[in-house]
Amino acid sequence: MRTCPSTISALTFDIFGTVVDWRSSVIAEGQALGARLGLQADWAALADAWRAGYYARMRRVAKGELPWDTIDVLHRQELDALLPRFGLTGIAEADRVQFNTVWHRLAPWPDSVAGLTQLKQRRVISTLSNGNLSLLVAMARHGGLPWDCVLTAELFGRFKPDPAVYQGAARLLGLPIDQVMMVAAHPVDLAAAQRAGMKTAYIPRPAENGPGGWMAPVGDTVFDFVATDLLDLARQLGG
Amino acid sequence: MRTCPSTISALTFDIFGTVVDWRSSVIAEGQALGARLGLQADWAALADAWRAGYYARMRRVAKGELPWDTIDVLHRQELDALLPRFGLTGIAEADRVQFNTVWHRLAPWPDSVAGLTQLKQRRVISTLSNGNLSLLVAMARHGGLPWDCVLTAELFGRFKPDPAVYQGAARLLGLPIDQVMMVAAHPVDLAAAQRAGMKTAYIPRPAENGPGGWMAPVGDTVFDFVATDLLDLARQLGG
Repeated sequence: MRTCPSTISALTFDIFGTVVDWRSSVIAEGQALGARLGLQADWAALADAWRAGYYARMRRVAKGELPWDTIDVLHRQELDALLPRFGLTGIAEADRVQFNTVWHRLAPWPDSVAGLTQLKQRRVISTLSNGNLSLLVAMARHGGLPWDCVLTAELFGRFKPDPAVYQGAARLLGLPIDQVMMVAAHPVDLAAAQRAGMKTAYIPRPAENGPGGWMAPVGDTVFDFVATDLLDLARQLGG
Repeated sequence: MRTCPSTISALTFDIFGTVVDWRSSVIAEGQALGARLGLQADWAALADAWRAGYYARMRRVAKGELPWDTIDVLHRQELDALLPRFGLTGIAEADRVQFNTVWHRLAPWPDSVAGLTQLKQRRVISTLSNGNLSLLVAMARHGGLPWDCVLTAELFGRFKPDPAVYQGAARLLGLPIDQVMMVAAHPVDLAAAQRAGMKTAYIPRPAENGPGGWMAPVGDTVFDFVATDLLDLARQLGG
């Protein structure tokens, strides 16, 4: 701890990987879809490629190489681009629409609902995701995530790690930015939040990319808090 | 009923007067402040003048006569303007700051929390208020209002009844606007929502302006639903 917990009034959370386990959820729905349609595929590889491809598209939008659009649209573009590679061109339009919304139904990590419920007792808790608002609302209803409000890059027309997203969130929360703490499993997100003036809490999620999977290097950013999960963060913040 | 309930996917709520009883809450905090400071005043008249004065300022912003600012700021400007008229210039800065946030602590009507909880079972429920986001978040935490998300005029830089507010809410909710229903105690809000394409539910709140107080005329707008309170609305929508 390098920061007094009592100076932190609100917590903003990265979602994909930090609060929900996107990979297991996408694999499970893919397997169920494949079983129903009689299609074989490496659903784990598809999940990883879908996530990586979405990320690459989002970065191209951030650089101005592609026009702004929601994550729902970027996910769908990437899905259509991937299906031929996995021998899944036989999936019809209605099933593609439904499978694309698997990102609305991602399962929380086991500690997420209990941790958020504890953290909410004394501080405002909000999403701060690149996911669009309707996706985040559906996900919260599906997983029982008790947000005080749903903030998203969509409100600012920029994606994280653009500083406008962190600054805009603090403005809407009505707080000096150094009273807001970004909580994420990804150092690049936290480093940008810190440059914008936020406090930072790093929650490593070694299982995000599967067993033995890739983890982003921490780099030389010094975080205000490092916690094993959201319950541990609640303990460190004193509830 | 002129509309099939199953076509409505999300409900957006006006807040002041529709979900919370601003007048009784402001009077009660005013009386407590007066008792503490030994000041006499007609707190009911102050509450009514404060609300009316805020509304006039907000309309001037909407017409471009005043620059955009949050409701918190407009409330504070109006409070400072009113205090001399009520013989309350002795209220110090710290007490003014605190009293101004009474609008963050308004009590829900007796049916609001139970009604919203029922309505949330099958539909997305959101604020759609001219109040700023941080005010609405604080109010929800204070009163236990179970919003799925907090939408506000602040996100669009326009106040209701500007059509951009209703249109922007539907866009963020990811829905065709005719699948969204505005719920309000104020016909002017509902008429504008209807012109923008939303469905409408009118909840008269005869007590909003006190016993025997003023109620806005309904005019000739035909609402999709008229309900006595939010529990009645939940019954009419089938939960």
